[in-house]
Amino acid sequence: MSELSKNKIKWIRSLQEKKFRESEGLYVIEGEKMVLEALATVPDQIKIVVHLSELNIELNGIEGIPCNEKELKQISSLQTPNKMLAILHKPKGKSVNGPFILALDGIQDPGNMGTIIRTADWFGVDTIVCSKNTVDCYNSKVVQASMGSILRLNIQYTDLREFISEKKLPVYGALLEGENVYDNQLEDKNLILLMGNEGSGISKDLIELITHPVTIPAFGKAESLNVSVATGILLSEFARSRS
Amino acid sequence: MSELSKNKIKWIRSLQEKKFRESEGLYVIEGEKMVLEALATVPDQIKIVVHLSELNIELNGIEGIPCNEKELKQISSLQTPNKMLAILHKPKGKSVNGPFILALDGIQDPGNMGTIIRTADWFGVDTIVCSKNTVDCYNSKVVQASMGSILRLNIQYTDLREFISEKKLPVYGALLEGENVYDNQLEDKNLILLMGNEGSGISKDLIELITHPVTIPAFGKAESLNVSVATGILLSEFARSRS
Repeated sequence: MSELSKNKIKWIRSLQEKKFRESEGLYVIEGEKMVLEALATVPDQIKIVVHLSELNIELNGIEGIPCNEKELKQISSLQTPNKMLAILHKPKGKSVNGPFILALDGIQDPGNMGTIIRTADWFGVDTIVCSKNTVDCYNSKVVQASMGSILRLNIQYTDLREFISEKKLPVYGALLEGENVYDNQLEDKNLILLMGNEGSGISKDLIELITHPVTIPAFGKAESLNVSVATGILLSEFARSRS
Repeated sequence: MSELSKNKIKWIRSLQEKKFRESEGLYVIEGEKMVLEALATVPDQIKIVVHLSELNIELNGIEGIPCNEKELKQISSLQTPNKMLAILHKPKGKSVNGPFILALDGIQDPGNMGTIIRTADWFGVDTIVCSKNTVDCYNSKVVQASMGSILRLNIQYTDLREFISEKKLPVYGALLEGENVYDNQLEDKNLILLMGNEGSGISKDLIELITHPVTIPAFGKAESLNVSVATGILLSEFARSRS
């Protein structure tokens, strides 16, 4: 039986940093619900499961490391660790095809990023392509906020300008001055929906690639919407027009 | 000129706790943008402005306390304090009238709460009524996430069951098994929209008061939507039907 050596604790903790996640090709998911979901749906991606020793879980040949509460706290990124965590191989780069591609330009907040992943999953959008300065989707806060959706979506980081230019698809971009989304037919089935950074919006060199600027109309005095809320509303509008 | 004494530092820091905000009837807003907005729009609610001493701001008789960066850091709840903060009187309890009342039942996460306030403000909904177990809207993280909208909305805490029963308005409730919101006419102008807790949804004793259960249809595999995203989508649907 494997044990949680000091070295292993150090190694697991190192995965809280992006550079180690990148060099190892691994990331961490936490909590009973998400780990059991991973065991059920993507067992081939799981490298190790660390769990409280009193738990009896069916690992089907995957390496399990029992631990106590104190050790779990040492390796967890949560304030209140929840029974187990697992170390997963990042999924291999898949090609990025639609029909519906969500493109994120410089999203910075991990909570927003995780919520966007979860919302995309709700609306059946399984492909997200991100600019290289978008927060790492394997960041522990992103993973947590995604509520398991990180296990299902195809998320890639690339040069968005190059990517969008090559795709030659209609590009819907969320801007403060676009066409009222309620008046828009949203008839395209193959498309890119482009969302920008929390503070500065979509970068200039991408704005010029937008073929359909859209706006969620304001009725009150707030200056802007939170980007994950705006993404949810636009994904809902596209879902509505397809349904 | 006032000074930032040790006692004042302690007192301002104490306002990070709900019990002191309640006993003092005060709360704190932070950052140049929000403080300047408060000075411009609700000067009568401001008790004190604490600002870096090199700044020259027009206080129009409001007490100003200059400080240095180290002191600002001591009184700030932010990791990176931003030039100034202000201590505000909580607005007096106003009566809660529609036409559109957003009711929140047990929202726990400050980020969600702040985002909901901001989103309501975007859609012109200026009244939020919360169950008593909903997170305090004057919590620093809520204030920050509201992006200034906390200054504009009428937010009250009350016994929601009593409140809803007395109002005798149509009650739209967000449930996982309701009527598809895209098929719903949403013709009511005077109404309550009820949103539930992040994990457990709307409490049982309020579910029975819902006259119009509504659901945002799922197209993918996520189990649920984040509550601030769901609120945004529903507020957008009502705005759409009014526009």
